[in-house]
Amino acid sequence: MTSGGKKQIKVGILGATGTVGQRFIQLLSAHPYFKIHALGASSRSAGQEYAKATKWKLNTPIPDEIKTKVVQECKPTAEGFAECGVVFSGLDHDVAGDIEESFRQSNLIIFSNAKNYRRDPLCPLIVPLVNPSHLSIIAHQKKTLGLEKGYIVTNANCSTTGLVVPLAALEKGFGPLKTVMVTTLQAISGSGYPGVPSLDILDNVVPHIGGEEEKIEWETNKILGGLNSSNTEFDLHVSEEGKYGRINVSATTTRVPVIDGHTASVSVKFRDSKPTIEEIQKAFREYRCEAQELNVPSAPPQAIVLHEAPDRPQPRLDRDLHNGACVSVGRVRPCPVFDVKFICLVDNVRLGAATSSIMNAEIAVEKGLIV
Amino acid sequence: MTSGGKKQIKVGILGATGTVGQRFIQLLSAHPYFKIHALGASSRSAGQEYAKATKWKLNTPIPDEIKTKVVQECKPTAEGFAECGVVFSGLDHDVAGDIEESFRQSNLIIFSNAKNYRRDPLCPLIVPLVNPSHLSIIAHQKKTLGLEKGYIVTNANCSTTGLVVPLAALEKGFGPLKTVMVTTLQAISGSGYPGVPSLDILDNVVPHIGGEEEKIEWETNKILGGLNSSNTEFDLHVSEEGKYGRINVSATTTRVPVIDGHTASVSVKFRDSKPTIEEIQKAFREYRCEAQELNVPSAPPQAIVLHEAPDRPQPRLDRDLHNGACVSVGRVRPCPVFDVKFICLVDNVRLGAATSSIMNAEIAVEKGLIV
Amino acid sequence: MTSGGKKQIKVGILGATGTVGQRFIQLLSAHPYFKIHALGASSRSAGQEYAKATKWKLNTPIPDEIKTKVVQECKPTAEGFAECGVVFSGLDHDVAGDIEESFRQSNLIIFSNAKNYRRDPLCPLIVPLVNPSHLSIIAHQKKTLGLEKGYIVTNANCSTTGLVVPLAALEKGFGPLKTVMVTTLQAISGSGYPGVPSLDILDNVVPHIGGEEEKIEWETNKILGGLNSSNTEFDLHVSEEGKYGRINVSATTTRVPVIDGHTASVSVKFRDSKPTIEEIQKAFREYRCEAQELNVPSAPPQAIVLHEAPDRPQPRLDRDLHNGACVSVGRVRPCPVFDVKFICLVDNVRLGAATSSIMNAEIAVEKGLIV
Amino acid sequence: MTSGGKKQIKVGILGATGTVGQRFIQLLSAHPYFKIHALGASSRSAGQEYAKATKWKLNTPIPDEIKTKVVQECKPTAEGFAECGVVFSGLDHDVAGDIEESFRQSNLIIFSNAKNYRRDPLCPLIVPLVNPSHLSIIAHQKKTLGLEKGYIVTNANCSTTGLVVPLAALEKGFGPLKTVMVTTLQAISGSGYPGVPSLDILDNVVPHIGGEEEKIEWETNKILGGLNSSNTEFDLHVSEEGKYGRINVSATTTRVPVIDGHTASVSVKFRDSKPTIEEIQKAFREYRCEAQELNVPSAPPQAIVLHEAPDRPQPRLDRDLHNGACVSVGRVRPCPVFDVKFICLVDNVRLGAATSSIMNAEIAVEKGLIV
Repeated sequence: MTSGGKKQIKVGILGATGTVGQRFIQLLSAHPYFKIHALGASSRSAGQEYAKATKWKLNTPIPDEIKTKVVQECKPTAEGFAECGVVFSGLDHDVAGDIEESFRQSNLIIFSNAKNYRRDPLCPLIVPLVNPSHLSIIAHQKKTLGLEKGYIVTNANCSTTGLVVPLAALEKGFGPLKTVMVTTLQAISGSGYPGVPSLDILDNVVPHIGGEEEKIEWETNKILGGLNSSNTEFDLHVSEEGKYGRINVSATTTRVPVIDGHTASVSVKFRDSKPTIEEIQKAFREYRCEAQELNVPSAPPQAIVLHEAPDRPQPRLDRDLHNGACVSVGRVRPCPVFDVKFICLVDNVRLGAATSSIMNAEIAVEKGLIV
Repeated sequence: MTSGGKKQIKVGILGATGTVGQRFIQLLSAHPYFKIHALGASSRSAGQEYAKATKWKLNTPIPDEIKTKVVQECKPTAEGFAECGVVFSGLDHDVAGDIEESFRQSNLIIFSNAKNYRRDPLCPLIVPLVNPSHLSIIAHQKKTLGLEKGYIVTNANCSTTGLVVPLAALEKGFGPLKTVMVTTLQAISGSGYPGVPSLDILDNVVPHIGGEEEKIEWETNKILGGLNSSNTEFDLHVSEEGKYGRINVSATTTRVPVIDGHTASVSVKFRDSKPTIEEIQKAFREYRCEAQELNVPSAPPQAIVLHEAPDRPQPRLDRDLHNGACVSVGRVRPCPVFDVKFICLVDNVRLGAATSSIMNAEIAVEKGLIV
Repeated sequence: MTSGGKKQIKVGILGATGTVGQRFIQLLSAHPYFKIHALGASSRSAGQEYAKATKWKLNTPIPDEIKTKVVQECKPTAEGFAECGVVFSGLDHDVAGDIEESFRQSNLIIFSNAKNYRRDPLCPLIVPLVNPSHLSIIAHQKKTLGLEKGYIVTNANCSTTGLVVPLAALEKGFGPLKTVMVTTLQAISGSGYPGVPSLDILDNVVPHIGGEEEKIEWETNKILGGLNSSNTEFDLHVSEEGKYGRINVSATTTRVPVIDGHTASVSVKFRDSKPTIEEIQKAFREYRCEAQELNVPSAPPQAIVLHEAPDRPQPRLDRDLHNGACVSVGRVRPCPVFDVKFICLVDNVRLGAATSSIMNAEIAVEKGLIV
Repeated sequence: MTSGGKKQIKVGILGATGTVGQRFIQLLSAHPYFKIHALGASSRSAGQEYAKATKWKLNTPIPDEIKTKVVQECKPTAEGFAECGVVFSGLDHDVAGDIEESFRQSNLIIFSNAKNYRRDPLCPLIVPLVNPSHLSIIAHQKKTLGLEKGYIVTNANCSTTGLVVPLAALEKGFGPLKTVMVTTLQAISGSGYPGVPSLDILDNVVPHIGGEEEKIEWETNKILGGLNSSNTEFDLHVSEEGKYGRINVSATTTRVPVIDGHTASVSVKFRDSKPTIEEIQKAFREYRCEAQELNVPSAPPQAIVLHEAPDRPQPRLDRDLHNGACVSVGRVRPCPVFDVKFICLVDNVRLGAATSSIMNAEIAVEKGLIV
């Protein structure tokens, strides 16, 4: 199958047996640009057929052609990876750093969902509905590392992803934000499998997710920040007091008994403007992004779905909108403390993880960065 | 049974078959000051034995002596109410206004969990761990209405209750607060029975609870506000811009799949001071209140339980501390935007409802306001 | 759109705003045979646009063309129904009896999910994957009632549906069953909306569903029973001791905190045969039914999906198989007491309700009973 | 504190940091007979203070005197165990076999919740509300092994425990049972911590618990079986066809999203009698057992609580009855296939585990088997 005459590109998946890896397989099994060619997992799984190596937890079956595919070790020399035009990584951060680097050194292209290279000054951190322009640093990355072809592109933490899309719409419409206060209510799938023990979360809230608050506070500034004119440096504006950047973000993250879909309660203050609630709603409704202009396969028809009902968005009812590739926003209303409050929702395993990696790669294809 | 030689006071319960009414019965069935004498409910239930009229949803059985007690209509003339020294109200707000007024006009004393009279300038709105001093307005209430004995005391909304206890500790320690931003994760029992349909909340979050945000934003200022020197007027300091009061509060309220226990994520800014995190933790730990000084039966040994573990408090594990009569606080840490962030938790049906009404009445007994 | 050259048939939906009604709309909004023409609901909803009249609880949006469609009263004379070739009923049983009869008397054809006419000796009770041959009684129904065109076809209770498909496969393979013991674990959606209060089911099991056990015990015998040679009478074989029929069925039904998907634990004894577990598994795997032979649009490729994994089927993972139109069976193993035990699972709102009504109507179209 | 003049006996707890171990600590922290003296856990925990070594998951705090107690390795020579009059074991079965044997060989007395010695012909398998008479085999156990003092007593699997209490009441009232068919709906705490991943059980049922069905089918026969007149051999009556015993039991076990409390749907056939439903209800209501006659501290006032409401027992509402030490029975009704059907419920971590071990030891104290 081809899209606009393009030949399908062979892809590999690292961490193929995990929660994000399973979504990669589900989303790539009938993809117009990409064809799954190699699956990598831990040495415990390597050598087994995929259906035996994984505990599949999605409500669609394992695609037939994947079931019997033999899982490889996560080594660039393992069978199949050398031919891959892109390698998607759903690896855990404790192993992702070394493995992804070894793939890059082998001149492979990695689109990674892991956190390891998000803060790397050479690696773009891209939410596909927000800042694909940051792909421009790739030339500098390859040059600096002396690589002809290999590079790493990361996508953001799942909660950050759901937050920055509406924030980008606000900055596009009304100029720079000054302050963001956010409390998240995150789904259990964000923690992988086996992840959160049921004894911890049934009839309960866990008001802490290790490292998550720092990610939201830091990543937001890189994603919404600029790239210098020579495309060699990100503009993070770390302030003298050590605060993370241009936008002062304060995040509290909690875990709730929801399977998929991270909800966030957000309050925002603009630096200069005072738009009305109606203007803000319009900005959300009309927000368009480069992924949509390029019309890549995973781009949702609406980057933001604005809900009018007073009790929406809700994870169970709204996470599947546009195949989990958009952000839902609702309850847009004045904030007695800042300028505006709203609720946003992202499918943490799709746009918050696998869909972002894939859409980033689709954009890279359209920009000629994957050939 | 008596306490310090006091004779037990006969009490009535309005809304006795509902969620809060059931807690009143559970908590009052072996109370040193009070003895359940009359039960009131809707005309549908009136005339039936209690065990038949109610759908009991607590995990302790209906006390034996209550099972066969006949439910009355909620009228001051119904059998038994005239002899009651206190009448506790767990009525729904759509009927509480008229019924409570009719009881007051019959010179009965009402301690109400309903919202109807919370904003009444004659009625105290009391969180027993915070502002029992506001009982001083009762003389003025009776005088103004020309009543010899009858008056109404209200307690706060369940979420407000969990919030103002730590806020009171902060104001006691470090002077006035300027700004409070709060997002709640509220239990289903807060909505009564049948309340939240299971189809709405299983694997879901509902990011809206009607009227709840306004209650938190308004009530906080009355509770933490003063009473003038003649004990005739509350000091609400409504600002010119129409903001609610001295403390600028912004609340977002959500419903989560938790049975009991409202969790809140709170960020706070002081007006004048900059205490350290350690000083704030100490203030929480050492907070003592009048209910404790008076040593009333429902007063918890600690008004605030400060949790050290990074992932506490949690509703399932911490709501039962001190029989649900305290507030749990944890994750006290700097806020990049305001001064300090923390998580707090209250048992919404005990301290957040029935326990507050009862403790308020206990304090009133000790102050000679119930005889 | 047409299927095999057929013109689309206009259809009405009664109870369109309820849980089953919403599924009818979702499943019929892009159907090759049927086109939604009229929506009926209670007089409270009548006159409103559908999107306003309903509380939509599905995770796909209301189809655009339905949103603004005006809801009618459930009367055969209400606008639109007269032109309908079929009327699907998702009505509650307390109103279904009279309304469905009035539609039939107006010579309309009703395919009903309600229980009211299931035991009627003139009405077929059809699980489309089991006994569409029972449609043969329709001529007798019309004749008896003196109607030229109008008739009622019912489908089974949701739990019965999930049970009788594997039982039919067993009887097809190995002859009559003698005894069936079944305990169900049923989803909350089976009770409609608002249905089960969350306080009743979070962290809980309710071991009782009113009337459900009798339905399973009775309906199983009608569905698996025969029709006499003149197609005028069902063969129920009610025994002298008053037991329900040929197959002695004992059912216990419970409610569990699952959104969609009824699970059942089943033990079965054959009257005459003693097949091996392997033979039984083969019978499940190879079971084919008339709906598949007729190749109607809603017929699943497999009527029964046989699971090999020891811990399947599971509602969350398997209810969506074949778009909820099949039954999952697993854990087929010897029973120390009877012959064989297994677990089965049905999507209670799809095959267990709306999908069955629709598939029954599709079969009726193919048999020339709807024109 | 003493009971009837008895001196408190020092006890050890093996597996003290696990789910059952935590319950042992909670239940023994203020026990009239026993005083916690030594805590054993894995070498990973040994040497740490208890509060640091455990992830405490109960809703009452760790008793103060236990918090700083240093955890030992599970060796009879580790500090403190030699002085213990009883050692309670909440060990996992993969280590319990060797450890418990080493304690016995050191002449220590073990009351174990682990499964390892349940089928041992020398070890009693005791549900304290059913068959404490089986303690009579202890003399034979010690003699056979040449031990002066050490022996092992086991208690049953949690699901078996909830089942055999009502079965014992039926056999006591109406003679031998012939057939039992049971389907369980088991709580997540039955699997320990971390135990069941939340992704497996939220909005789901897992229809399989490894080894559980065999335990119910086998253990029921040992518990309800006899001991020969010389107290040296259990009477298991294994039949020629290899069926487990006198009573033909068929069990299906499932996991549901419930925190504590195993529910079971049970159908029973008597060998000889045909009591009425009223007679059966009376037998449940009036069942008394030796633990009650001996009046040991953990014996519940009622061994069986018979529920009249048609939708009870329910785990959330009824598991706390009599401090989790009884079995709830409800929905007693005729079975179309066997004689009678009912629902039973047991608190799996209390009577189903720790409470049984403790009550068994209390009975042993009263019988002079622990000194």
